[in-house]
Amino acid sequence: MLQKFKEHININFPFLKDKKLLIAISGGVDSVVLTQLLHELNFNISLAHCNFQLREKESDLDEEFVKLLAQKTSNQIFKIKFDTEKFASKNKLSTQIAARELRYNWFQEIIEKHNFDYVLTAHHADDNLETFLINLTRGSGLDGFTGIPKINGNIVRPLLAFSREEILAYAKTNTIDWREDASNATTKYIRNKIRHQILPVLKEINPNLLETFAKTLENLQESKQIIEDRIATISSEVFETDFSTEFILNAVERLEVTKINIDKINQLSNPKAYLYQLLKEYNFTEWNDVYHLLSTQSGKQVYSKTHRLVKDREYLLLSERDFSTALEMTFEIHENQFEITNPIYLTFEDVLQKSDENKQAIYVDKDLLKYPLIVRKWENGDYLYPLGMQGKKKLSKYFKDEKFSLLDKENAWLLCNAENEIIWVLNYRQDSRLSLKNTSKNILKITSK
Amino acid sequence: MLQKFKEHININFPFLKDKKLLIAISGGVDSVVLTQLLHELNFNISLAHCNFQLREKESDLDEEFVKLLAQKTSNQIFKIKFDTEKFASKNKLSTQIAARELRYNWFQEIIEKHNFDYVLTAHHADDNLETFLINLTRGSGLDGFTGIPKINGNIVRPLLAFSREEILAYAKTNTIDWREDASNATTKYIRNKIRHQILPVLKEINPNLLETFAKTLENLQESKQIIEDRIATISSEVFETDFSTEFILNAVERLEVTKINIDKINQLSNPKAYLYQLLKEYNFTEWNDVYHLLSTQSGKQVYSKTHRLVKDREYLLLSERDFSTALEMTFEIHENQFEITNPIYLTFEDVLQKSDENKQAIYVDKDLLKYPLIVRKWENGDYLYPLGMQGKKKLSKYFKDEKFSLLDKENAWLLCNAENEIIWVLNYRQDSRLSLKNTSKNILKITSK
Repeated sequence: MLQKFKEHININFPFLKDKKLLIAISGGVDSVVLTQLLHELNFNISLAHCNFQLREKESDLDEEFVKLLAQKTSNQIFKIKFDTEKFASKNKLSTQIAARELRYNWFQEIIEKHNFDYVLTAHHADDNLETFLINLTRGSGLDGFTGIPKINGNIVRPLLAFSREEILAYAKTNTIDWREDASNATTKYIRNKIRHQILPVLKEINPNLLETFAKTLENLQESKQIIEDRIATISSEVFETDFSTEFILNAVERLEVTKINIDKINQLSNPKAYLYQLLKEYNFTEWNDVYHLLSTQSGKQVYSKTHRLVKDREYLLLSERDFSTALEMTFEIHENQFEITNPIYLTFEDVLQKSDENKQAIYVDKDLLKYPLIVRKWENGDYLYPLGMQGKKKLSKYFKDEKFSLLDKENAWLLCNAENEIIWVLNYRQDSRLSLKNTSKNILKITSK
Repeated sequence: MLQKFKEHININFPFLKDKKLLIAISGGVDSVVLTQLLHELNFNISLAHCNFQLREKESDLDEEFVKLLAQKTSNQIFKIKFDTEKFASKNKLSTQIAARELRYNWFQEIIEKHNFDYVLTAHHADDNLETFLINLTRGSGLDGFTGIPKINGNIVRPLLAFSREEILAYAKTNTIDWREDASNATTKYIRNKIRHQILPVLKEINPNLLETFAKTLENLQESKQIIEDRIATISSEVFETDFSTEFILNAVERLEVTKINIDKINQLSNPKAYLYQLLKEYNFTEWNDVYHLLSTQSGKQVYSKTHRLVKDREYLLLSERDFSTALEMTFEIHENQFEITNPIYLTFEDVLQKSDENKQAIYVDKDLLKYPLIVRKWENGDYLYPLGMQGKKKLSKYFKDEKFSLLDKENAWLLCNAENEIIWVLNYRQDSRLSLKNTSKNILKITSK
């Protein structure tokens, strides 16, 4: 196998040569054999072992085993202990997902800190097929049937083309020791059932199952590629950027809003299928609710753990979710400040007269101002005396008349004086109360960017 | 189950009501239960049974059983005996494929002759999952993972949402008899292994496996839909019609050539994946050879059982395969004929003088003609005296100079006289030998359409 592995690496992973490699090692036969193979071929390797503390003494014995292996091969080793159960319950994750998150985050930390080029994991062809079948039992879409990626960012899986059988045979022939994983986690239970009860039958039906399966995966990956091409084209047609909104958003920086043209979605052969593909990266889970937005009334919304989707007349508005905290933010501006940068960028400048006119600047009578000024979001009960209009108007009415969407409203910032009177609906409308009069002596120019 | 089935039909197959239905019945539990259910619900059904004569006496007993069932329920029955093995070996098909072809062809015959609206088959959810897994063991692409279609033309599968378990339970509760299929064909062997050794384990892992699987199939069908949309767009960009070629082809009618722009294929994200999708309906099997055409020299070709693909400079030329027989066709035209319609449309007209000039008409000196004239394809050794050029030219040289593709050459027809001298390379070039001279007295105008 060493020779075959060497050739395989040369052809498929030539970039690994002379690079600093970190091997994720559990102590199981796969990762031990991967370590041994790369060691024999004189690659520049170090080991990284996670003790997830899920199997008490067994976990510690694994750690001990890996430590000794590193000594024997004189390789650097990184070790860490995780309180996986605690992390899982705190973050409401399954043990399996928690372990994966802890593990890959930690690898990326080591990589950055110690300048590694790649993390190597020992996934093999049987793992790949098992995962395919696990996804089949759980229900999946095409993404669940395209296999574990051979290369994914800086994570590389050099054994993916090899079978468990080959790996085991290599270990036995070369009298390599390893630790059996006695874990009984649910996924492990499912994986073991598939490994021991299903794969053998499939391999009886087709002794070349793994080769056949590799070809199948390639076909499905090609299908995925074509879908991605189509979705790239479609998203450029149905995703729109609302510049007026974006201007305000840019000021807050974290916020980005994408407008999705509902009419264009509905013109596609299968709106539901397209909406899924267009939005799948945004972590939505309640897809029926998402599809329902296409036909429901304005204002309805669906949240994912990271994003929000709002129906707004002929659009769905997609934005990141964490801006909701911004709603509670209030910022004070004192008389001696000539500039603020948070939550938005504003400058304050004494000027002799009004010069340029645009939406991004207002002029106020400085003598009427009461400091500290306040930058905040709107509240129910807010009202203003819009400059250029007659009298007083509820801010909610103003928003409605100006056709602000739900998101526009949330994204809007108000500049008020110390008594909470609105001076400016930023970039939209000044209030007439503090605006420049013929009698004004000291003029303050306020500019947003 | 009867109630559930009734509702399922109302929601998913409302169009079956009051229609003339033909049930494909083997005598196995699935088709017997389907018959019973539709009988109970007073649908207008008839039965169709194929005896494939693959299991000797057993096959005859099945036929007998179905005949009795039809008597009991007073339904019309159609029966047929096939020599399946003979048909399979004659057409080089597997027994299974042969049986399927015989069966569906016969159903379509009955449907037309007796005015049925639909053929109903008894495929159920377990069949669907088994087929998915069979395709997994054999290697497949997305098409092999999108399930048996619920409705496909006039073939309808009303039990596809029901499990084998439900069907069996209904048969037992209602003391319905059926015939066990004792077949031992290879596919049957594989299917049985999957049915008895794999499905139970998967159902242990997920007791709602079939519902989960239905959702999975829906997802994969949606992916397929998106691919089809993309391919429709792409094929309109890379498939071109060569009008000059098409003109000749139309004359022969059976021939249609599609030009595939290689450069445009190569600009796609994954040329191989796209070429497969664009050509998959043309029955090619040697896909590596097909992909190789993209980069190989002109003249190379790949055949499927129905089509031919030829590399021709910057194009791949796709055409139906059976025109090769046309190459051997020679047609005689006698002096008294004023029109021929096969293999091409030609008219012969005595005229007083030359009038319109175009590629579709020539004028010859009738007194020089030797009948019968011959319409044929070109052969090695053919030569002509091109009108308007000096002297004699090999036809192969003429083709080359005029940049005829391999297909252009094959599609070209020659009109010759009885001594096999070329009169006209149809629609391209007249020969000067029989062309109109100043001395010509009797003028024949020959026109192609």
